Amino acid sequence: MPNPKEHHAVVGAGLIGGLWALMLAQRGYKVTLYDRRPDPRKAGVDAGRSINLALSDRGWKAMTKAGVDEVVRTIALPVKGRMMHDHSGNQFFQQYGNDDQFIYSVSRGGLNMLLVEEAEKHPNVEVKFDHPCSGYSINDKGTVDVNFKDGSTIVHDRLFGTDGVYSAVRSTMVRNDRFNYTQQYIPHGYKEILMMPNDDGDYRISENGLHIWPRGEFMFMALPNPGGSFTCTLFAPFEGEESFENIKTDEDVVAFYQKHFPDSIEMLPNLIEDWNENPVSSMCNTKCYPWNDGGRVALLGDAAHAIVPFYGQGMNCGFEDCSILSELIDSLPENSSESDWSAMLGEYSRVRKPAADAILDLALHNYIVMRDKTGDPKYQLQKKIEKRIAEAHPDKWKPLYSLVTFSHIPYNEAWDRGELQQAVMNVVMSQSDIETTWESEEIIELAIETLDKFHSDSNSLARPTPLLSVDV
Amino acid sequence: MPNPKEHHAVVGAGLIGGLWALMLAQRGYKVTLYDRRPDPRKAGVDAGRSINLALSDRGWKAMTKAGVDEVVRTIALPVKGRMMHDHSGNQFFQQYGNDDQFIYSVSRGGLNMLLVEEAEKHPNVEVKFDHPCSGYSINDKGTVDVNFKDGSTIVHDRLFGTDGVYSAVRSTMVRNDRFNYTQQYIPHGYKEILMMPNDDGDYRISENGLHIWPRGEFMFMALPNPGGSFTCTLFAPFEGEESFENIKTDEDVVAFYQKHFPDSIEMLPNLIEDWNENPVSSMCNTKCYPWNDGGRVALLGDAAHAIVPFYGQGMNCGFEDCSILSELIDSLPENSSESDWSAMLGEYSRVRKPAADAILDLALHNYIVMRDKTGDPKYQLQKKIEKRIAEAHPDKWKPLYSLVTFSHIPYNEAWDRGELQQAVMNVVMSQSDIETTWESEEIIELAIETLDKFHSDSNSLARPTPLLSVDV
Repeated sequence: MPNPKEHHAVVGAGLIGGLWALMLAQRGYKVTLYDRRPDPRKAGVDAGRSINLALSDRGWKAMTKAGVDEVVRTIALPVKGRMMHDHSGNQFFQQYGNDDQFIYSVSRGGLNMLLVEEAEKHPNVEVKFDHPCSGYSINDKGTVDVNFKDGSTIVHDRLFGTDGVYSAVRSTMVRNDRFNYTQQYIPHGYKEILMMPNDDGDYRISENGLHIWPRGEFMFMALPNPGGSFTCTLFAPFEGEESFENIKTDEDVVAFYQKHFPDSIEMLPNLIEDWNENPVSSMCNTKCYPWNDGGRVALLGDAAHAIVPFYGQGMNCGFEDCSILSELIDSLPENSSESDWSAMLGEYSRVRKPAADAILDLALHNYIVMRDKTGDPKYQLQKKIEKRIAEAHPDKWKPLYSLVTFSHIPYNEAWDRGELQQAVMNVVMSQSDIETTWESEEIIELAIETLDKFHSDSNSLARPTPLLSVDV
Repeated sequence: MPNPKEHHAVVGAGLIGGLWALMLAQRGYKVTLYDRRPDPRKAGVDAGRSINLALSDRGWKAMTKAGVDEVVRTIALPVKGRMMHDHSGNQFFQQYGNDDQFIYSVSRGGLNMLLVEEAEKHPNVEVKFDHPCSGYSINDKGTVDVNFKDGSTIVHDRLFGTDGVYSAVRSTMVRNDRFNYTQQYIPHGYKEILMMPNDDGDYRISENGLHIWPRGEFMFMALPNPGGSFTCTLFAPFEGEESFENIKTDEDVVAFYQKHFPDSIEMLPNLIEDWNENPVSSMCNTKCYPWNDGGRVALLGDAAHAIVPFYGQGMNCGFEDCSILSELIDSLPENSSESDWSAMLGEYSRVRKPAADAILDLALHNYIVMRDKTGDPKYQLQKKIEKRIAEAHPDKWKPLYSLVTFSHIPYNEAWDRGELQQAVMNVVMSQSDIETTWESEEIIELAIETLDKFHSDSNSLARPTPLLSVDV
């Protein structure tokens, strides 16, 4: 444990900032948590509009480390699998993992508030709202001048940027020599529609599932909220034949839903109202490197790696940053020097970068899978076969979705294992009689033999791209 | 020609800004050219240190359009080819193109000054130094508030960002929704060493060549200056076994040069002095899209597309931006509307983006070729064969270097043609007896037949990557 007299700044009181301020405080540091926005408890957040996020194992691990898992559990709704809706209104359920494995739907605003309040309860933490950061500079003493938009500066020993995709902390790093940065918008946008509870106050569709209407170039989704409603989202291209730019009138909206999601219309009485009120939002990936500026500044969460939402891992990846960085801080020697900090934050950058790059790729890829593949019978058959292999050989086989969602191995290792397994499944699915033999022991044997062969011969294995069998 | 009463801002009085201000003025617009730096004529530029750039056909075309080609010619030194130096001090000359084709070594500072002064002579142009731009905003009237770091704002009808790799104009666009941006540093840096004239005031090595000492992971280069000196540059990795971080003492510098460039040492009497005085500089690629903000703002040159210097095309590509945008402005209807401008600048973005992406790739690739391939006898043989094919069939074959340097076809088309020709050369060079048969007519016939075959069958042609036969 290094010098606990240090006073750290955490810039950005979002999900990651709230948790990270608490974790630093628990390690004995004095912490000031800054946010550009007014205090949501005074400003009155729009409670009617809620974005849902999926909390899974990596996120829970960080909650447990910080001792807030029990309280978070009170606002988290377990979701057991995905429910696909076809054009005719038929529904197909697919369980995410084993019977005791769930992802948890939580409201972004609710979880954010909870984490900031848990941090604020800690005597080492002070929270300052209405403090928009404009960047930082390393001063003559080697400590950090945190700069604010009103021209003021507050000196801190170290600065942690948890200020999201448009990070002000990162905006200073972007001007550093040899700092790499990319922001890339995808050609698709999204619009939210709220599915209200029915007249009895109940859920209109099963609350045990994440509902998907996969339709090739676009898809509609619904995640349950506590209280009977669902937050629904249409993902579609901005431009093109069937796209947001071509849905102009109320009639266009109804016609589009009638054509593609006919079973959803009667469940969405406020479709037109929400459509006209809610914007089409864009989605951006960002990558940068390094995530630290010497031993004095580091980025966590979206500030370091913003990804598209299609694997439900953006928040979980940010929470995993907190777990890993807290462990690295715990491993610092007793009287840690500046070079210890510099080496440690450099290590944090190097370890986390490939993991973040991998989940970015997985998330991008999973968008194609979700909207295009989940409705495909052959894809569904493959999932069933994979489940049988995994049950017969849990030591050798774990589906990629489980590696990402229900494990703690680095995302890049999950991705590598997933690709190897997909190469095996390509062999399995190419068996001419697979539709009739899929439940046989021989198929399981074929899979494991092929896997072993690929393992022993992994240098010559051509990476199977694109992988088309990831799921949410 | 659109409304000539408009008053345009050009931000950045570098090479591209100077030329572009002049071209806008020639089209009847009132122009203010801003630069963050003080007037170099008053500030006294460091004349001893000169970066050289290679002006080639694309650049000359823009000079001619603006009517400054004659005056530029007075400060440009023709270079006919490249001169390779091997470990033993042997030199091999390779001509760039036909006997009448040259690239022209010019001093960045000298050409910059000339272009800004040519612009300033035009009655429509005003130049304001000491005006560091901080960004812009589109105001309520739809015109452009150009913002400066002192907090002042000057309103212009349109804004052109020619402010280079760290563009302030682009820094506003980066915050626009759906604006894509990448900055990527390469792992290599460079350091400049000046080769003074000999005691008689003459060049120490032939001034007709761009000298290269290709050494695999690194290389040394020399470009002639008027007056007998050469500007030399060592390109090498920042980190690693043989890298800048491992050359620490004066003895290390001498040992490194003794080992790799022994023939250069006696020509560099101030090697140690320059080494210790000059920094190791980094090299960055940037990409962005779109290059315009509606019909009001556009980027030209490095502000839109900064590339590494290894094809000698960064400046030429920026000048080509000016040629093409000037032609698009000339094609606007008489009383052009805002939507005409918006469509025209959108077209400029769309047309130029693939060309800039292609020259970025070509420049990155050419670094590998220059430092690793130019010294390879097989590579040199391939160049000789290609020259024979091109001379026998000038209508069908033009080496990639010539397509890039001595033509005006878009860089992306040059790259495509170059890859096709490289695929043909792979077939030619794989002939078992090529070392003895290379001067035969059959080899030329084989090349042309293979080219025709690939052309007629181009859909099935696998793109040959990586292409390893580009040259500077």
